[in-house]
Amino acid sequence: MIKFIKRKIKDIKLENALLIEGLPGIGHVGRLAAEHLVHEFNGEKFLELYCYDFPPQVLVKDDGTIEYMKADFYAIKEPKHMIVVLGNTQALTPVGQYHLAEEIVKLGIEHGANFVYTFGGFGIGKLVKEAKVYGATTSKELAEKLKEHGVIFRNDGGGIVGAAGLMLLFADLNNIPGICLMGETPGYLIDPNAAKAVLEKFSKLENIEINMEELEKRAKSMEQFIERIKKFEEETLKALQKPPSDEDLRYIG
Amino acid sequence: MIKFIKRKIKDIKLENALLIEGLPGIGHVGRLAAEHLVHEFNGEKFLELYCYDFPPQVLVKDDGTIEYMKADFYAIKEPKHMIVVLGNTQALTPVGQYHLAEEIVKLGIEHGANFVYTFGGFGIGKLVKEAKVYGATTSKELAEKLKEHGVIFRNDGGGIVGAAGLMLLFADLNNIPGICLMGETPGYLIDPNAAKAVLEKFSKLENIEINMEELEKRAKSMEQFIERIKKFEEETLKALQKPPSDEDLRYIG
Amino acid sequence: MIKFIKRKIKDIKLENALLIEGLPGIGHVGRLAAEHLVHEFNGEKFLELYCYDFPPQVLVKDDGTIEYMKADFYAIKEPKHMIVVLGNTQALTPVGQYHLAEEIVKLGIEHGANFVYTFGGFGIGKLVKEAKVYGATTSKELAEKLKEHGVIFRNDGGGIVGAAGLMLLFADLNNIPGICLMGETPGYLIDPNAAKAVLEKFSKLENIEINMEELEKRAKSMEQFIERIKKFEEETLKALQKPPSDEDLRYIG
Amino acid sequence: MIKFIKRKIKDIKLENALLIEGLPGIGHVGRLAAEHLVHEFNGEKFLELYCYDFPPQVLVKDDGTIEYMKADFYAIKEPKHMIVVLGNTQALTPVGQYHLAEEIVKLGIEHGANFVYTFGGFGIGKLVKEAKVYGATTSKELAEKLKEHGVIFRNDGGGIVGAAGLMLLFADLNNIPGICLMGETPGYLIDPNAAKAVLEKFSKLENIEINMEELEKRAKSMEQFIERIKKFEEETLKALQKPPSDEDLRYIG
Repeated sequence: MIKFIKRKIKDIKLENALLIEGLPGIGHVGRLAAEHLVHEFNGEKFLELYCYDFPPQVLVKDDGTIEYMKADFYAIKEPKHMIVVLGNTQALTPVGQYHLAEEIVKLGIEHGANFVYTFGGFGIGKLVKEAKVYGATTSKELAEKLKEHGVIFRNDGGGIVGAAGLMLLFADLNNIPGICLMGETPGYLIDPNAAKAVLEKFSKLENIEINMEELEKRAKSMEQFIERIKKFEEETLKALQKPPSDEDLRYIG
Repeated sequence: MIKFIKRKIKDIKLENALLIEGLPGIGHVGRLAAEHLVHEFNGEKFLELYCYDFPPQVLVKDDGTIEYMKADFYAIKEPKHMIVVLGNTQALTPVGQYHLAEEIVKLGIEHGANFVYTFGGFGIGKLVKEAKVYGATTSKELAEKLKEHGVIFRNDGGGIVGAAGLMLLFADLNNIPGICLMGETPGYLIDPNAAKAVLEKFSKLENIEINMEELEKRAKSMEQFIERIKKFEEETLKALQKPPSDEDLRYIG
Repeated sequence: MIKFIKRKIKDIKLENALLIEGLPGIGHVGRLAAEHLVHEFNGEKFLELYCYDFPPQVLVKDDGTIEYMKADFYAIKEPKHMIVVLGNTQALTPVGQYHLAEEIVKLGIEHGANFVYTFGGFGIGKLVKEAKVYGATTSKELAEKLKEHGVIFRNDGGGIVGAAGLMLLFADLNNIPGICLMGETPGYLIDPNAAKAVLEKFSKLENIEINMEELEKRAKSMEQFIERIKKFEEETLKALQKPPSDEDLRYIG
Repeated sequence: MIKFIKRKIKDIKLENALLIEGLPGIGHVGRLAAEHLVHEFNGEKFLELYCYDFPPQVLVKDDGTIEYMKADFYAIKEPKHMIVVLGNTQALTPVGQYHLAEEIVKLGIEHGANFVYTFGGFGIGKLVKEAKVYGATTSKELAEKLKEHGVIFRNDGGGIVGAAGLMLLFADLNNIPGICLMGETPGYLIDPNAAKAVLEKFSKLENIEINMEELEKRAKSMEQFIERIKKFEEETLKALQKPPSDEDLRYIG
């Protein structure tokens, strides 16, 4: 067994809530999307979850206080009841990943959840202007609903590893539905663009409005940053291709 | 301890049943043979077994629904009572493999089994026309019976790793007999030929008739596929050996 | 779960004690500092802690008796109540490190501790004359107090791995304060200099006097040893750079 | 926790018995020595111990029956009460090694043991005519006794890994004495010579006579085998050093 410690912060009362997973993963897409919900909808932290299969360390902040490896549970009431789980780590071992997914779904249901969403990134190795959103779900009916909303399906026969996949298994074993939304992302960047695409599908599926301004700002900064990197790469390449002048040669070797 | 979750699909009543293991292994021989029994004899799924030592992921199907890492238990009534276990994975760790083999045998006995068969492949690194069948068993009497039916014994001092071997240990610890049948197979192909050889011995040992048509069709397709590969290899080799003509040379470098 | 065995040596009665961790780590700084406290203040061993996640071996001493992998708990009464934990190993696995930190804090609290100190080294890859002391703590108030005493904070966003970090987590989960003091150290030496710097801060924070003579002697021996190594390295380098004489050349090749 | 299964073969009644460990290790010295005691003194198997941390496999014998990964417990009554543990494997993981050593000592004590002996090899990388015997023990008094009998002590500051070491820890935690005897051995051979040296010390310490004939026969066969290998190596070396004749050159390249 893997041991857990739960630290209760406050009592909450939710019903028919969506349980939303935002642990670190590819492109940090899931984490960014879930975090955005907490900010936009004033999520209140009500529980901290510690796991003995998390990295055996504490992090040190600039002010000398420490930050723990944990998963924080936030309650949202408007526009819908939601429990959003934000964490700074996944479990380290395969067995730990099973126990963690089980524990998060169990805690979600205990606090009023009856539907599971996991958000993640689908690594495609390159940047795209419009990130497509791939989906996977526990039932054929929900698959139809995803299709109607422009969510596409993977046909690479691949899998969803870690909490994003296993929480669907534990949703199913607890007889509640689950949906995973994966935004296309390069995989080597923290990607607010993919997070935004995932939240757009989520907002349509759940019929709620989400103000994307903050994510758009972050996406814009990132594009400008990438533009500057590209420019620098082009100039460096040109300089390397030009035949060296006499002056240059004096500095080589 | 490794944790398991059992999802009951339906009630079944069997007696003196054979428990047959078909988890993935060398050449997928065991899996193919066990699967063939389920198809031929209309096995009914009655239980799903999830294990926290399975790969921590879910698989995504083309239709957007997910498939879990699990072992499915099928009940067969005619021509004999059988419980066939089909899975898409073995346990990941050595300790997990012990617990899984123990759990499968325990569930088998709980549902009426009193004899264990494990099917597998014996990797020989090449294709053969007639796959020999090697055997191993929990008692000398059964070893004699295997010999009488043309099952041969290994003399390489080797072992049987994973569920195929450990289920014989747990059969023995539960005082029921166990037999492992291993069909010769290259090891790098999914091999319906070896599965057919294993089932032929099984049918003789258990005195039942098994229609092998579907396995034979698959074996034939595979042979044609291998023929085409061989031909392609020969032609490629010939082309590489022929001295390049003037025309060829113009394209090289 | 990881199993522990506790061997009680004697009964002790302490109140409001400081729990001080001295397990092996970078530069053995924590171990040296904690050991120094036990020597200076006549610590009495009252408990031995064995852990199944410690290295699976015993050590053989020159006199033929064996030494075990364990953590020894010492009680100090003057100048303050302290429980000092000295060990010859950390736990081997991440999960084991969680369980060990939890167990040490639990035993400390059971025996009267209400404040946790962990000592360690902060590896900087080179020798320094005056080792700075970095700190991390469970609360903002304590961070302020550390700052007032000249303890500085890291800004590398890094972490504290193992018992030194996790004991702060378990202090916090048990609602008692915790401080980690890390002395700058090369990382490739056992460093009494860094241990002394850590104890100087500790003595100021706790308002007690600690005679550093023994640590200073060890620091001096170490400096002399390093001086001799440096000299030898310089002479070797000079010899390699001098062009070989005819005599030398006769011996080459 | 690591799970065990015990299969009782028969009831036995022993008192003040020596518990002797013979699991596989360096040079198989411990295994050979313990096996020799079982043969010479007609040990009766009374228990089989299975462990979920043993290799997850069964071994196949030439006659088609299988052999399990396990530890067999033998009872000896004359010349002294002894429980000898022979196994074909050690536990795979560090935690498993702790649990296994604990379980073996516990079972030994339950069946009448009050003194633990572990036998092993001390790898020295070369063959020796007379194998020295190194010792390690749980108390100073026993260390003196070992010295009087010509057992020497290691001064390499090293350890004893696995069951041979950990069983001394669990002997000590159960307040019974323990001795480890290690015969010098190359490390790359199964070494009846070292086993014989260890048993000679054991027979002196316990004041019993042990007929070494069978071990001596095995040692002689091994020496002859090594002589033939040496001769072959010398002749091969000579042939490689002789300048090739014209005849030889015609075959090269």
